[in-house]
Amino acid sequence: MGKVRSPFLVVNPKSYLYGKKSLELAQAVDKIAQESGLQIFFTCPFADIRYVRENTGCIVVTAQHMESLKPGRGMGHILPESLKDAGAGAVFLNHAENQLTLSELSKTIDRAKKLSMITIACADSLSEALSIARFSPDILLCEPTDLIGTGQVADNSYILETTSQIKAVDPDIAVMVASGITTAEDVYNVIRLGADGTGGTNGILKAPDPVVRVQEMADAMLKAYKEKA
Amino acid sequence: MGKVRSPFLVVNPKSYLYGKKSLELAQAVDKIAQESGLQIFFTCPFADIRYVRENTGCIVVTAQHMESLKPGRGMGHILPESLKDAGAGAVFLNHAENQLTLSELSKTIDRAKKLSMITIACADSLSEALSIARFSPDILLCEPTDLIGTGQVADNSYILETTSQIKAVDPDIAVMVASGITTAEDVYNVIRLGADGTGGTNGILKAPDPVVRVQEMADAMLKAYKEKA
Amino acid sequence: MGKVRSPFLVVNPKSYLYGKKSLELAQAVDKIAQESGLQIFFTCPFADIRYVRENTGCIVVTAQHMESLKPGRGMGHILPESLKDAGAGAVFLNHAENQLTLSELSKTIDRAKKLSMITIACADSLSEALSIARFSPDILLCEPTDLIGTGQVADNSYILETTSQIKAVDPDIAVMVASGITTAEDVYNVIRLGADGTGGTNGILKAPDPVVRVQEMADAMLKAYKEKA
Amino acid sequence: MGKVRSPFLVVNPKSYLYGKKSLELAQAVDKIAQESGLQIFFTCPFADIRYVRENTGCIVVTAQHMESLKPGRGMGHILPESLKDAGAGAVFLNHAENQLTLSELSKTIDRAKKLSMITIACADSLSEALSIARFSPDILLCEPTDLIGTGQVADNSYILETTSQIKAVDPDIAVMVASGITTAEDVYNVIRLGADGTGGTNGILKAPDPVVRVQEMADAMLKAYKEKA
Repeated sequence: MGKVRSPFLVVNPKSYLYGKKSLELAQAVDKIAQESGLQIFFTCPFADIRYVRENTGCIVVTAQHMESLKPGRGMGHILPESLKDAGAGAVFLNHAENQLTLSELSKTIDRAKKLSMITIACADSLSEALSIARFSPDILLCEPTDLIGTGQVADNSYILETTSQIKAVDPDIAVMVASGITTAEDVYNVIRLGADGTGGTNGILKAPDPVVRVQEMADAMLKAYKEKA
Repeated sequence: MGKVRSPFLVVNPKSYLYGKKSLELAQAVDKIAQESGLQIFFTCPFADIRYVRENTGCIVVTAQHMESLKPGRGMGHILPESLKDAGAGAVFLNHAENQLTLSELSKTIDRAKKLSMITIACADSLSEALSIARFSPDILLCEPTDLIGTGQVADNSYILETTSQIKAVDPDIAVMVASGITTAEDVYNVIRLGADGTGGTNGILKAPDPVVRVQEMADAMLKAYKEKA
Repeated sequence: MGKVRSPFLVVNPKSYLYGKKSLELAQAVDKIAQESGLQIFFTCPFADIRYVRENTGCIVVTAQHMESLKPGRGMGHILPESLKDAGAGAVFLNHAENQLTLSELSKTIDRAKKLSMITIACADSLSEALSIARFSPDILLCEPTDLIGTGQVADNSYILETTSQIKAVDPDIAVMVASGITTAEDVYNVIRLGADGTGGTNGILKAPDPVVRVQEMADAMLKAYKEKA
Repeated sequence: MGKVRSPFLVVNPKSYLYGKKSLELAQAVDKIAQESGLQIFFTCPFADIRYVRENTGCIVVTAQHMESLKPGRGMGHILPESLKDAGAGAVFLNHAENQLTLSELSKTIDRAKKLSMITIACADSLSEALSIARFSPDILLCEPTDLIGTGQVADNSYILETTSQIKAVDPDIAVMVASGITTAEDVYNVIRLGADGTGGTNGILKAPDPVVRVQEMADAMLKAYKEKA
């Protein structure tokens, strides 16, 4: 844990799943991670992090948000140490549905680094991505807000441009492209175009069989990656 | 679970404790709850709710905050169902360190009721308390912000006035008075003055021995309650 | 200024109008206020309050929001004294597009009272309205969020119920019903049903001629009011 | 208007002054701006922008905050067009007392550019400043939060480092250093060390005579600038 491996897949059920249903998907995804050797990030509600961690072996259990506070006051706030202790190996920051001030984004990335948690920082334009790149998150998710949840994929030139410009600022940042990724073919394409990782919410949860969809995405990802090599 | 019993004690470590240290205190408090028969609410970070619930028997595991969203989108937000499923029997709402809009307070109280979670709603003046009383929370914590964390106790007339006015609006609401409660004597006093419950953070955590302090508070509470009867 | 007169009309261009266009509508509305004797509240951006005040005579220039801070620090925050000094005679608080914490709502109402500014507090359900009534705003706007901007009017029983229940808590609070008010007929109806006032944004701005629409609304309001007497 | 001239001075009364007192200081500062030829930014509450603009000639009237919304809905929000129309030639963004999400900061800078308003973006660490530099604000104020309002000045190496690193990213960004600037000597020093501008709140308002203090600061600034040339 603590290292991003390219390519990677993010299964992000947001607040759609919790408790037993969250764990069931996590376990199925865990099996795919184990068999494929792929690094798979799996997000769940804060209250399920330890539950999912204790009942899976390979997936990176991922928090959906956190704050920069330190142990002390802060009634009801999301303490990084509590997430790490429960088993979170990664954390999403600045998602469009939970935006941070620039200052808080800077501080939460620092907090995560000190706790050896992988950071997945979200930007909703290339300009924002380049700004965030200065804080050296592990993964930069560049996702135009307009496309989230629409099933529309960013076009090829956007993906090429985004990936190359972020790498130019800091080649160590892994680039994730995810807006509108629904099918295995979408996954194949973004990896071929240079993204290090991708993932989805609706594309997976609304598939006829979410586990089959994750398996197809994992296969497509490995195929694309091998062809690039 | 689901019912407030008078008198009750709230052990509220805010974000001071997490993981193993949170559980250790919870288990000691759980033993006190069991032996005394007192209803004790114990708060912990979201990520520890299930952990504390699975390893204790009597305490009411209490979330420190939640939001009104329903299962669905809402990346990183605090889904009521996820807390309940993890074992939260109660939830603090509108704490001074995590204030809600009036509308969100109204909605989260409704959500908690539907999930059979006890609500502890916070007000920082009598006027606010009477406004919140309209939403019929189970417990109303009336705590002048100026006193939080100071070790200063609200004076007797304030406690009498607050308690009687809230009861006048809705006799079913339990009144909690907690600002500056540090010692067993403080606990004894507020219960004698009519409060249904009390609790603390610093008064407990900064005591020479927090578990001994909780025991003393529980004893004082029962003593005061018997004398009132 | 400083007193609500029943019935009253609120012309609320939100952020649609500013500068010269805001003033032009304000002046036309001012003429209607003068000729009809009706109390008309007119909202504008903060930066236009003094401009509108200095170039009109009868309308109550109304701020769309404010905060509870006092003169001092508070870079970029909305200082009540600055609004009052510029000529605001009233202020909207807790509008659905700019919600306040319960505590801040309580404090801004207090600040407005001390500065002799009329408060128009917004609720998006009857339950919220009754809670806010405890803070004794001058006007309570009860407007189900779902209907804002839809052109749909709340039904008659809702209006009757809302009005009578708020008056039961505090007969001095004027009740405003405004969701979906578009035409003069809508205005006539809500006043007949017991509301003290009403108003609109889209119903006025998107009318073929906004000034004519305000005139029609004013006429309908006076007609309804006379018939009730 | 629309162009930053080096060196520049920022007189920032935050929410300490409004109405007549704000205008009086603005007019005195305006005279200093006229006589010295120095570009002086003067901030005031939104409700005073037009008032100050109409009664001064040389100062750049500066808004203390704004949002990215466009004319339309947005009750009580700070519409850029309304500020520009009222006479604001510049705007502070992301001040420590009014922080923006990274996304909103990006958008407000874009909005200001389109309206030809000078942007003064605030960062509270060098790392944040370099991140914000990607959005090309006209002025970058790098002010460690810990020092705001303390009267403590950032040390020389900090100022040199900050200035050179920001210029390395984008030589067109003017660098403002302001934390703890209290005296004319402080102003002299930061300009000598490479800052393009500076300014203050308490250093000016709490001086025995604020206007004299601004005059001294202006003189010191010109002296330092000439010596650098």
